Amino acid sequence: MSLNVALAMPSHTARAVFPPRSLEPLEPGLNLLSREPIQDFTTPEGSSLLAEADILITGWGCPMIDHDVLDAAPRLRYVLHAAGSVKHHIGDACWERGIHISSAADANAIPVAEYTVAMIVLANKRILQIARALHTTRTDVLAEQLFPDMGNYRKRVGIIGASKIGRHVIRLLAPYDLDVVVADPYLSPAEAAGLGVGLVSLDDLVAGCDVVSLHAPSLPSTKNLIDAGQIERMRPGATFINTSRGELVDQDALLARVENGDLYAVLDVTTPWVLPAESRLYTHPNVLLTPHVAGSLGNELERMAASAVDEALRLSRGEELRFRVKEEDLAFTA
Amino acid sequence: MSLNVALAMPSHTARAVFPPRSLEPLEPGLNLLSREPIQDFTTPEGSSLLAEADILITGWGCPMIDHDVLDAAPRLRYVLHAAGSVKHHIGDACWERGIHISSAADANAIPVAEYTVAMIVLANKRILQIARALHTTRTDVLAEQLFPDMGNYRKRVGIIGASKIGRHVIRLLAPYDLDVVVADPYLSPAEAAGLGVGLVSLDDLVAGCDVVSLHAPSLPSTKNLIDAGQIERMRPGATFINTSRGELVDQDALLARVENGDLYAVLDVTTPWVLPAESRLYTHPNVLLTPHVAGSLGNELERMAASAVDEALRLSRGEELRFRVKEEDLAFTA
Ligand SMILES: NC(=O)c1ccc[n+]([C@@H]2O[C@H](COP(=O)([O-])OP(=O)(O)OC[C@H]3O[C@@H](n4cnc5c(N)ncnc54)[C@H](O)[C@@H]3O)[C@@H](O)[C@H]2O)c1
Ligand SMILES: NC(=O)c1ccc[n+]([C@@H]2O[C@H](COP(=O)([O-])OP(=O)(O)OC[C@H]3O[C@@H](n4cnc5c(N)ncnc54)[C@H](O)[C@@H]3O)[C@@H](O)[C@H]2O)c1
Repeated sequence: MSLNVALAMPSHTARAVFPPRSLEPLEPGLNLLSREPIQDFTTPEGSSLLAEADILITGWGCPMIDHDVLDAAPRLRYVLHAAGSVKHHIGDACWERGIHISSAADANAIPVAEYTVAMIVLANKRILQIARALHTTRTDVLAEQLFPDMGNYRKRVGIIGASKIGRHVIRLLAPYDLDVVVADPYLSPAEAAGLGVGLVSLDDLVAGCDVVSLHAPSLPSTKNLIDAGQIERMRPGATFINTSRGELVDQDALLARVENGDLYAVLDVTTPWVLPAESRLYTHPNVLLTPHVAGSLGNELERMAASAVDEALRLSRGEELRFRVKEEDLAFTA
Repeated sequence: MSLNVALAMPSHTARAVFPPRSLEPLEPGLNLLSREPIQDFTTPEGSSLLAEADILITGWGCPMIDHDVLDAAPRLRYVLHAAGSVKHHIGDACWERGIHISSAADANAIPVAEYTVAMIVLANKRILQIARALHTTRTDVLAEQLFPDMGNYRKRVGIIGASKIGRHVIRLLAPYDLDVVVADPYLSPAEAAGLGVGLVSLDDLVAGCDVVSLHAPSLPSTKNLIDAGQIERMRPGATFINTSRGELVDQDALLARVENGDLYAVLDVTTPWVLPAESRLYTHPNVLLTPHVAGSLGNELERMAASAVDEALRLSRGEELRFRVKEEDLAFTA
């Protein structure tokens, strides 16, 4: 008996994440109830799809799945999220009733890691600073005189958090001649060795690296993880990359150190997410800001769709979910 | 009997490329005649080192090794270049007398490939354009509305030239979800398959790729390889990356297409190498210029030293050179 699948997300999410071709692989083994997503579980269309669904494929903006929703979903056993964190739409009810949850956070981690690796390579070589000098002076720029420490040979890169993103960064950096170390209270030395990197304390990482890249999730325990002391500890000339969340960083201390002149920052996330126009982070030449774009955008949304569709196909073949999320993970994941 | 090694290069090259630690591995099996390099083969110090050397380790700015030099070097059998092209210092005499030549061009190719891969990833995602928009407008930038085609999932990347650099780019891109194709008249379909990429014609590559990256060497046959017709053929929204040499490209046609508004360019090399201050390539927002810095600089010079030292160690163990250059290669290599 084939499993019934319904989509649940705003229609603009469905349009962006699930172009028609992305749903085609479902056809043979699964029964897609409708190509129109459930936008509201309480409308007549929504509740009739919900009543039939064994699997919900959810996306950004899916309404909360709580007791009332589950009461109207007698067959539902799986929620496969075609996006990252499940904390916004998976209510306690789902855990209590043993619904199996999966997420595309690993697929979403890939573009963040790609962004990070590109920024690490450019930072160690001072490429963007040199480009700016060339475009500004319009004359021969003597790069090695400006930046005697430039280059990507045997520099040390510190990854804070062997999270999904942190692990993809480590994987993509493997072919580079860089010394990669990680700090993560949840990682054992054996696991670090398995990843091919050294495990160090956060203090040692921050003090010893040419690039410090932050990949820990936002949790009560990680608020202000990179506090004024850690920012002071960074090497002169180091680059700090944050693609995680602004609240993990003492942003005032970071700006002060940047304005001191010997720290570079690449920030995809800040506090608040859109900085006020008068923020000096916009104008300091050693800061590169991007507006929270490291994650999946544009065609990268399709990778998350493919990940959720692949999870559904695994279920149709009687296999285990590949990216199952368990309730006990929530305390230390994004 | 241990082989005698001498260095031959200007002392400023030796200081930059060969810090004392880089020469230490030579000590047990080889006899380094002097840590001071031969700067001029005709001075008393230069000619006395030359008379004893079995191996010359050369660097940027080494004087030409011609018949006169070889006449004064009765034991010389190997020239190991700790830099890229050997065309500037290996005279015909070396080939005629069967001197074995090796180069660190493969080590020098690595940073160029790293630069290229970073630029490919940022280009597909429009990261630098988005960063510029954010720094300029200082307000919420709606990246996907500005760049609906953004993202690195299943974009097509074209590598012109399966050269040393081109091959390292292909290797570093392997873990990405990108479709990589190559154009190279010297590459067989079987060799392309071995590299894991598709072999296409130059015309098809240029017309079909989101990023076109040029890695062919500068030769009479490659002058103006990317002519006005090829530039016209590129996709709207494509990015053209050149880390090769300016003379391979019709730069006026490139500028005209960029000014048309639908082509991006990342240029580490231009014609002339330092553009005149009035060049509009400096000011167009869709052009990123860097001043010939993709190759080995800063600590990356040590990788070339390590490569030459490693070749010497191979000889001391009676092994073959790993990066031997043959005369017949010169017609189609950099
Ligand atoms: N910029 C973007 O567009 C973007 C996109 C996706 C995710 N993110 C953010 O990136 C961060 C990482 O996301 P993820 O999915 O890789 O995380 P994740 O859920 O995989 O991270 C969990 C892991 O982080 C590690 N960790 C927990 N506390 C830590 C601490 N105090 N110090 C070091 N490591 C710790 C543990 O190994 C834990 O298993 C999150 O903050 C997330 O919100 C940003
Ligand atoms: N930007 C920098 O700092 C920097 C540093 C090093 C090298 N370079 C330049 O990069 C380019 C590549 O260097 P390399 O050492 O990788 O080259 P290489 O010597 O390895 O290139 C030789 C190969 O190029 C290919 N080739 C030859 N003619 C071709 C053509 N018409 N079309 C396509 N492919 C062709 C062939 O496969 C040939 O074997 C050169 O122009 C070199 O000068 C630039």
